[in-house]
Amino acid sequence: MGKNTLNHDTVGLDDDKNALFIIDQTKLPNDVEILYLTKLEDIHRAIYLLQVRGAPAIGVAAAIGLYIAAKDFDVDCWEGFYEQLKAAKNYLASARPTAVNLFWALDRMEQTAVRSKTLALCEIKKALHDEALRIRDEDIAVCRAIGEHGLTLLKNGDGILTHCNAGQLAAVRYGTALAPVHLGRERGMNFRVFTDETRPLLQGARLSAFELVADGVDTTLICDNMASQVLKNGWVNIIFTGCDRVAANGDAANKIGTSGLAILAKHYGVPFYVCAPFSTIDMTAKSGADIVIEQRPPDEVTELWYERRMAPRGVNVYNPAFDVTDSELITGFVTENGIMRPPFYK
Amino acid sequence: MGKNTLNHDTVGLDDDKNALFIIDQTKLPNDVEILYLTKLEDIHRAIYLLQVRGAPAIGVAAAIGLYIAAKDFDVDCWEGFYEQLKAAKNYLASARPTAVNLFWALDRMEQTAVRSKTLALCEIKKALHDEALRIRDEDIAVCRAIGEHGLTLLKNGDGILTHCNAGQLAAVRYGTALAPVHLGRERGMNFRVFTDETRPLLQGARLSAFELVADGVDTTLICDNMASQVLKNGWVNIIFTGCDRVAANGDAANKIGTSGLAILAKHYGVPFYVCAPFSTIDMTAKSGADIVIEQRPPDEVTELWYERRMAPRGVNVYNPAFDVTDSELITGFVTENGIMRPPFYK
Repeated sequence: MGKNTLNHDTVGLDDDKNALFIIDQTKLPNDVEILYLTKLEDIHRAIYLLQVRGAPAIGVAAAIGLYIAAKDFDVDCWEGFYEQLKAAKNYLASARPTAVNLFWALDRMEQTAVRSKTLALCEIKKALHDEALRIRDEDIAVCRAIGEHGLTLLKNGDGILTHCNAGQLAAVRYGTALAPVHLGRERGMNFRVFTDETRPLLQGARLSAFELVADGVDTTLICDNMASQVLKNGWVNIIFTGCDRVAANGDAANKIGTSGLAILAKHYGVPFYVCAPFSTIDMTAKSGADIVIEQRPPDEVTELWYERRMAPRGVNVYNPAFDVTDSELITGFVTENGIMRPPFYK
Repeated sequence: MGKNTLNHDTVGLDDDKNALFIIDQTKLPNDVEILYLTKLEDIHRAIYLLQVRGAPAIGVAAAIGLYIAAKDFDVDCWEGFYEQLKAAKNYLASARPTAVNLFWALDRMEQTAVRSKTLALCEIKKALHDEALRIRDEDIAVCRAIGEHGLTLLKNGDGILTHCNAGQLAAVRYGTALAPVHLGRERGMNFRVFTDETRPLLQGARLSAFELVADGVDTTLICDNMASQVLKNGWVNIIFTGCDRVAANGDAANKIGTSGLAILAKHYGVPFYVCAPFSTIDMTAKSGADIVIEQRPPDEVTELWYERRMAPRGVNVYNPAFDVTDSELITGFVTENGIMRPPFYK
């Protein structure tokens, strides 16, 4: 983690406590609080409430969470075990509909169990334990590789704009969109990063700003509607965002606001890169039209963290959690396998 | 005001109380509270704190405010009166640097006094009183005329997107960008209006949503970063925004976020109209580069109404109150004199 003072993985397994641990992201930036979750319901709720969020992080959390649940299944045969495993898997998968990593990680866990089905249950559980940790370790390696490839696009002193949080807090370490920044910092480079606050839940203000400041990065917070002016000022050399799901044609679903930013980038001639693990590409989705967009509750917009109502009664609210950025607006995809251009059809 | 339940002018003169009255816009949408201001300092603060805001409304408030101040000048000759008048005028003009209406209204008041300088001081004060009311009455007539012209661009059932509040709460009545909607409502028309919440001060969520719902309009609140998706969905036929100052070439300064919206409108092929009194055009500004952009305090972004910090210590904040939209992105200007295209060079 280099000089970063946030010296803790975002998500992981505590074998002593038999718990999934997460940094509770709803408490940031004011408190760094670690939650230890042992019950399936609590793990589901943590994902739904965005206590753990970010496509890579929820994949790892779901994998570890499924192991934690499976460890305690009170059954004595494979059939009973598998039935409960599938129920738990479907329950966790229902927590967020958009991020493909969630389904991908849960599928890997199921396949691991199926491959081990002739073994004793304790061995199957051991295989799930090891697979969850493998998914975690791969996430760290993948994010580091994304950082390496992204860093080839940067020079010292560059201005970078990012949206939402696709940083270390969205993965186990490093992150995706912010991996090049953190890796560059480890090597003594300096950047000037602009972070959109990212309404309604302010992941840019609360999370990206937090982890960037913690890493000693010159960080400037803006409201989402200020990006046009920042680009017009010529302060930004490159835009990096993360991504929750990419269709085979390169349409990319990411935090609401990403598509608008991509259109601004095109207008101002600033390169726009999406940083994501290769597993984010969903070959079963031909285009963005095939990606389900999660709609979130109106009070996220009207209540500002539930403390005071900021909109009149009687108003409707449209609150999609994501939007789809057209492939043609994306300069390239920074993955662990290198920088790519769609389409991704085989 | 038709069926509108907000049955009160936004700003005006109470002769009995010898006061400028305003609806305190920082209390909306939760409370409709009328402030009666009699001291110059309080009037300056009300403008600076956005208790009264919107280019037309602050012009009227400044004119009435200058009269309220002048009425009590303790002098017995023109020279002394004029000196105090200029000091009071400059003080009020310093409250907000971007909206040209503020300077325009104050200049009219000064010219009125100068024209009357051979009269008795009580007559000069009477002239200022009448001029302030004339500015108010003209604002009502101008906004109504903007509404008439804007309405020619609409048909029943249209989807309209607006940003910030350029509604009745930004003027004395009707507003500018929302004047066509309110006038259409008086004539039994229905529209579906989308309002950007407009961070950081949420004028769209608090003010536009409030006055639209009060007028019985089907109103949908979105975060600023959702406009791209709403346009992509095909829900919007036309975009109406207000404007704080227009340069002679048609570059238009308006609430931060407007320029981004105009770029999205161009991308999606949706017409983008700026609605403003003709007095908003500043012939002394050749282009947007000549318009001073007000920078506001960082805590507007970091503190969310000062109740809870939403960004880490150590983060920089860029918080411009306005941005400049390039003339070529603007389909047309809806003024009281009709719908126009720049340049406005004579």
